[in-house]
Amino acid sequence: MTKSETNDAGSQDVTKIMHALGARAAAAASELASAAPEAKNFALASAAKALRGTSADIVAANIKDMTAARGAGRPEAFLDRLMLDGTRVEAMAKAVEDIAALDDPVGTTIAAWERPNGLKIERVRTPLGVIGIIYESRPNVTADAGALCLKAGNAAILRGGSESAHSARAIAACLAKGLREAELPEAAIQLVPTTDRAAVGEMLKGLDGTIDVIIPRGGKSLIARVQQDARVPVFAHLEGLCHTYVDRGADIDAAVPIVVNAKMRRTGICGSTETVLVDKGAHEDYLTPIVTALLDAGCEVRGDEATRQVDSRVKPASEEDWSTEYLDKIVSIKTVDGVDEAIDHIARYGSKHTDAILTECDGTARRFTSRVDSAIVLVNTSTQFADGGEFGMGAEIGIATGKMHARGPVGVEQLTSFKYIVRGTGQTRPA
Amino acid sequence: MTKSETNDAGSQDVTKIMHALGARAAAAASELASAAPEAKNFALASAAKALRGTSADIVAANIKDMTAARGAGRPEAFLDRLMLDGTRVEAMAKAVEDIAALDDPVGTTIAAWERPNGLKIERVRTPLGVIGIIYESRPNVTADAGALCLKAGNAAILRGGSESAHSARAIAACLAKGLREAELPEAAIQLVPTTDRAAVGEMLKGLDGTIDVIIPRGGKSLIARVQQDARVPVFAHLEGLCHTYVDRGADIDAAVPIVVNAKMRRTGICGSTETVLVDKGAHEDYLTPIVTALLDAGCEVRGDEATRQVDSRVKPASEEDWSTEYLDKIVSIKTVDGVDEAIDHIARYGSKHTDAILTECDGTARRFTSRVDSAIVLVNTSTQFADGGEFGMGAEIGIATGKMHARGPVGVEQLTSFKYIVRGTGQTRPA
Repeated sequence: MTKSETNDAGSQDVTKIMHALGARAAAAASELASAAPEAKNFALASAAKALRGTSADIVAANIKDMTAARGAGRPEAFLDRLMLDGTRVEAMAKAVEDIAALDDPVGTTIAAWERPNGLKIERVRTPLGVIGIIYESRPNVTADAGALCLKAGNAAILRGGSESAHSARAIAACLAKGLREAELPEAAIQLVPTTDRAAVGEMLKGLDGTIDVIIPRGGKSLIARVQQDARVPVFAHLEGLCHTYVDRGADIDAAVPIVVNAKMRRTGICGSTETVLVDKGAHEDYLTPIVTALLDAGCEVRGDEATRQVDSRVKPASEEDWSTEYLDKIVSIKTVDGVDEAIDHIARYGSKHTDAILTECDGTARRFTSRVDSAIVLVNTSTQFADGGEFGMGAEIGIATGKMHARGPVGVEQLTSFKYIVRGTGQTRPA
Repeated sequence: MTKSETNDAGSQDVTKIMHALGARAAAAASELASAAPEAKNFALASAAKALRGTSADIVAANIKDMTAARGAGRPEAFLDRLMLDGTRVEAMAKAVEDIAALDDPVGTTIAAWERPNGLKIERVRTPLGVIGIIYESRPNVTADAGALCLKAGNAAILRGGSESAHSARAIAACLAKGLREAELPEAAIQLVPTTDRAAVGEMLKGLDGTIDVIIPRGGKSLIARVQQDARVPVFAHLEGLCHTYVDRGADIDAAVPIVVNAKMRRTGICGSTETVLVDKGAHEDYLTPIVTALLDAGCEVRGDEATRQVDSRVKPASEEDWSTEYLDKIVSIKTVDGVDEAIDHIARYGSKHTDAILTECDGTARRFTSRVDSAIVLVNTSTQFADGGEFGMGAEIGIATGKMHARGPVGVEQLTSFKYIVRGTGQTRPA
């Protein structure tokens, strides 16, 4: 994309633009908090309809982005993330409809109890408020994130990458149309109108307290910058350095396909296993079939001494391998002395995202699940299940590895807060 | 207190001291996360015993603090907060025992469900990690906060005011004794060993990512500084500007004692009502008994025009009164045109802490509870119930008005995070 007019705006203008945007978002959030579920769903249905109805325009806008990206020599993987065609627009519309079909979380009771004095206390879900989404080239995030925030009664401020600006604008216009038709405030989903990078800095500072949480979507350097600079809470994970530990108590026939699935089903997702830990107490029987299956599946294996003895195709693993998120057809394998060494290895090298143990021994499994401090801990299944959809949350905006508020898949419920409603019949508090 | 040796330490030394403290806390937290409930309870019981057993020493240490505070010309209210005697030490020991008696939150299941593919998903409570407590002159916070953090499996870093340093040290020694006797890491509850103010700054920066959350306890200027400067999450409320709205649908005979209790039971706590809003649709009947009852209870009343006409003792309220947290026997009263104006007034002037409506009309109550964006919203009862103990939480470390993670009373459950445990029987994720 060529330097746009908005890029020429002074940084003072950007500050002004962004703070005005924040104020509008806060006002919209306050209105949305008590919006009827039907109104929100109508807005989403209308937006989906608009996406389908303007599919050709969206693809045309995307062609502008694609042409600029090709001109800038962007790699194939980047172009694939950026590209939209009729099928992808249809998938986007469908995703918005699926979000509309989820249960409305706002106002639902999380817990309820009665006190001896007759006070009835209820903890009910409320929207969080204003959510800032900072993302890169995937245009569908505009629709997904906007829809998910709206479903939970939040206002969204969307800041997409400049490379997808035309596509994002065309998609955001459909969301705006949906909001208008439902008579909800258009500022409920706002696309940052400037591609000036200073806008991101303003968002990270929270726009005068209007942004309640920031969710970054994109590569590691984006996430790292957001986590480093944000003055507001962030839901994110920097990386998914996931482990699968094969215990001496594992059923090896079940373990081999799980390990292969955990690594190879999709190597580019955050829940893919990067390191396999194999119990020394079992490794003579277990290591060979695991290594062979991974190699046969086309995976490069980097192993410690014991692993290398199994197959000459195994390359030596260096210290660096234990802390590398390959996101590729590469795995590191290490032999460990039982579950405790596995737990220690994960504590040292893991990213607190997702880790699995394969064992038929309940006690060992319990030790692992209670001691591994990760958002998701699995027993006898694949780390590739680390996904909001697979958890039954319907849709997710990402996976968080922080411990505050949202941990694990961030779905519509995780985009809510709560309040207490206390109902009395005239009780006063005794001195 | 005279300038201590530690005060003379250079700021580089403080940084070093504090980071070492943080590292020890993180190591202790990791050990505590899987500590048996019995061990934690034994530590608390031993600490309570030590408090009782060294009561005379604690009071002697407190006398040093009291003498210095008197010498520094501290006001009576400050001295009262600082003062310890045998009765107060006993109350402190009892509070620690009460915390031990609470249900252990760690490992409890918050939610559990099964997926169509047979995966069993559970969301279980885990400790948060390391909690930093920054407080002022009340020495009992040392015991309360330390015990509550330990109960939830967290390590605590306690930074008390320099005025209570001797008292805090004597109390912390009892907690350390309890931990030792239970063979838990002593670093589970650490008192910052320096009174250098730079230590607070280091804590607010998070000690290299070791502090997960900061909880400030004290006056408004402390809370404001913490909220302003903290780079880690904060559980706090800046003020409790609570409202009680008397709707036209209220039962006036029930309403009058509730209003008087809400304002007058204790005027110095955050849940005391500061502004009473009276529905104009009812005010001729309702205003007089409310104003009279408050005046008769010894409360200064500052009112709008309509309120002043009720009784000549009512002083005129200025714009500033609507945003003043008196924490005293003073109330502001405003007449409003129904529930919507009450909601608007609360949105404009309130502090999102605690607000009440008095009405027999369910629809109006629902409108109020759904639209008032406060941590606690009450119907037909007193705002003075805004308290973790009254909510049945057993003990609280404060009340939070933020929307992230903890909102309302912060008890032992609010000091936890969670993780997902997924149990399978060999499932792999389909392509």
